[in-house]
Amino acid sequence: MVNKTAKERLVFFISDRTGITAETIGHTLITQFPDIRFVQRTFPFVNSLEKAEYTVKRINDVGVQDGTRPIIFNTILDDELKTVITTAEGMHLDFFDMFLVPLEEELGCPSSHKSGLSHGMADEEQYMNRIDALNFSLTNDDGASTNKYPNADVILVGPSRSGKTPSCLYLALSHGINAANYPLTDADLGADRLPQNLRQYKKKLLGLTIDAERLHNIREKRRPGSTYASLKQCQLEIEIVKEIYRNEGIPAIDTSHMSIEEIATTIMQHVRNSKS
Amino acid sequence: MVNKTAKERLVFFISDRTGITAETIGHTLITQFPDIRFVQRTFPFVNSLEKAEYTVKRINDVGVQDGTRPIIFNTILDDELKTVITTAEGMHLDFFDMFLVPLEEELGCPSSHKSGLSHGMADEEQYMNRIDALNFSLTNDDGASTNKYPNADVILVGPSRSGKTPSCLYLALSHGINAANYPLTDADLGADRLPQNLRQYKKKLLGLTIDAERLHNIREKRRPGSTYASLKQCQLEIEIVKEIYRNEGIPAIDTSHMSIEEIATTIMQHVRNSKS
Repeated sequence: MVNKTAKERLVFFISDRTGITAETIGHTLITQFPDIRFVQRTFPFVNSLEKAEYTVKRINDVGVQDGTRPIIFNTILDDELKTVITTAEGMHLDFFDMFLVPLEEELGCPSSHKSGLSHGMADEEQYMNRIDALNFSLTNDDGASTNKYPNADVILVGPSRSGKTPSCLYLALSHGINAANYPLTDADLGADRLPQNLRQYKKKLLGLTIDAERLHNIREKRRPGSTYASLKQCQLEIEIVKEIYRNEGIPAIDTSHMSIEEIATTIMQHVRNSKS
Repeated sequence: MVNKTAKERLVFFISDRTGITAETIGHTLITQFPDIRFVQRTFPFVNSLEKAEYTVKRINDVGVQDGTRPIIFNTILDDELKTVITTAEGMHLDFFDMFLVPLEEELGCPSSHKSGLSHGMADEEQYMNRIDALNFSLTNDDGASTNKYPNADVILVGPSRSGKTPSCLYLALSHGINAANYPLTDADLGADRLPQNLRQYKKKLLGLTIDAERLHNIREKRRPGSTYASLKQCQLEIEIVKEIYRNEGIPAIDTSHMSIEEIATTIMQHVRNSKS
């Protein structure tokens, strides 16, 4: 096995549970090396000696075939299983070894070494909150109804395809936030002002905007050649919603160059600030 | 400032982008210390000297008030901003410092030190895949239609409230997987066999089961005292769906003690295995 500085490298994420932590860490790190193509493979639920040995065998088999030294991100907590994994040929990055030792020292107590605490069912109440929030966002999607708005943490408004629905679902699943959304449609835009049934919830409103060009591209994928998707229509809608936000003092987020995670994080900041 | 082994500790997650990586890492680590109550605060989008200085001030203010040494998880990449953050009073855990140096050595090349690569819009195509998958799961939720099933990566079946919808949405948002779901309702269960319109997609089916007791508890929260929520009804439905899965050779996942993330990971394993 040669440790060559190849342009393609194997990366393994090993976990005794979902592998989400291992993947998040690993993905964040490997995106820092854009010139290398990483072939990724996750081994979740490696929670028995048998599975650990199987994992080592798979890593070694693939590694030998590939001819490069695999990179192994490991978030297993159990010492016995961990020892088995370290026998795999490769560069080992052990997440808990790197962080838990200094933390134990700082906190003056040993860690529990119990797995499944982070992405499992450890906190039943928090878990049910997320499911409830998800149901909330599904029943309050796209202006479907407004009678539950008193229970909303935030209400997103904006033109069709500006990112409202994905953001609401993400906020529910990740943060247990009750996020409703209400589209500013042609009818509302014609009136050039906030729809009447939103006025009483003005403090909860957050407006999304987006570059007209980008909106046009997104809509073209859905309904090619339609008036709805035309650049002219997109420009018009964006112009009017921006005016509404300005006139009504609704804070606005430009989603043009933001991922769902970035939009959601920006919304969370807003929700926290308006509560504190 | 005293470094006491308090039962309550302040934790700060600092990021120049969403803070998702910092929070994931930090959360995974602090759940390893169940006897300590952690008061968590995230500072996302710390992407200017001004914001970095403000963050340091906030950490120091809160830390002094609290009287304990804060724990600071940092995922900032920019060296100048990083240097500012290290002036905050506290225990510093710098994610990139710990991992990037050994990785640069292993890979034989420097890292890009560019931020926003992990949870941003870096990969436009992958991003649009997720949005498309989300639309797919929304329009194919709860057996709404079956005509798009040829495009499904997986079709979840199971009784009402066994976890189908959250799992599908999570799979879409996190992995860009086209996941449809079809409820096995009373009508189907009466027939005691797989609904006719699912038969041709049998290879894509995955069955969810759940403890009757747990299903009963979940349904009671929605419709207290209803026949639908009664333990007897839940036992009956579970018994029948299990029989259907067995008779039809549909692989089944017991969701009773699983989080959405764990169910999704198990489904992903299944999808990958059936494709390979």
